[in-house]
Amino acid sequence: MSIEKLAKDFTQAVAENDAQTYQSYWSDEIVSLEPQQDSPMARVEGREALLQKHAWWEANAEVHDAKTEGPYVFGDQFAVNYEMDVTMDGERSQMKEVGVYTVRDGKIAEERFFYGS
Amino acid sequence: MSIEKLAKDFTQAVAENDAQTYQSYWSDEIVSLEPQQDSPMARVEGREALLQKHAWWEANAEVHDAKTEGPYVFGDQFAVNYEMDVTMDGERSQMKEVGVYTVRDGKIAEERFFYGS
Repeated sequence: MSIEKLAKDFTQAVAENDAQTYQSYWSDEIVSLEPQQDSPMARVEGREALLQKHAWWEANAEVHDAKTEGPYVFGDQFAVNYEMDVTMDGERSQMKEVGVYTVRDGKIAEERFFYGS
Repeated sequence: MSIEKLAKDFTQAVAENDAQTYQSYWSDEIVSLEPQQDSPMARVEGREALLQKHAWWEANAEVHDAKTEGPYVFGDQFAVNYEMDVTMDGERSQMKEVGVYTVRDGKIAEERFFYGS
């Protein structure tokens, strides 16, 4: 599968919240990175840990609206723009971020989230 | 200077087409990467070569409208969204791309452009 097709299928599955499909593109050794170095979410390694991260998010975030835009491809990487209207800890906010994904052997080996301000 | 401030200043200068300011954030050894591996623009190394790339763009592209959005920060990297309405070789098109910049020693050491489709 080309990187363009993988990126499009993955992004569409994320947009539709189709977890079974987008998780099928994860490598079992996927690494998920967030900017905050003091957070347990800074570096999450492996499918099981990432499933727990997602479960934590589902339990703690109330998502009012989410938009996905992209993907954008460079070599074996692609980028996706995210926009979210979400309530966490009783506080509602509008978040924007860019996810940069690195593909190895046809699977997503790393996801790295860039935060807007 | 924090990565957040550098990223904001750089992005604002690009949005205002203030070349003197945005080029002041380039490392002299900056590497500029585009996805097309068969193009001379695939990998451009160094300030002088990148100035020539910019001169080529200025000479060949008629930009009707350009939008800049961001920046988004992760560690020593930041991402910027670009949208452009441009005529090249007589053909007008709307381009979208994501630039991912890597900062070393307070200067931009690499820029990498992801293309939308």
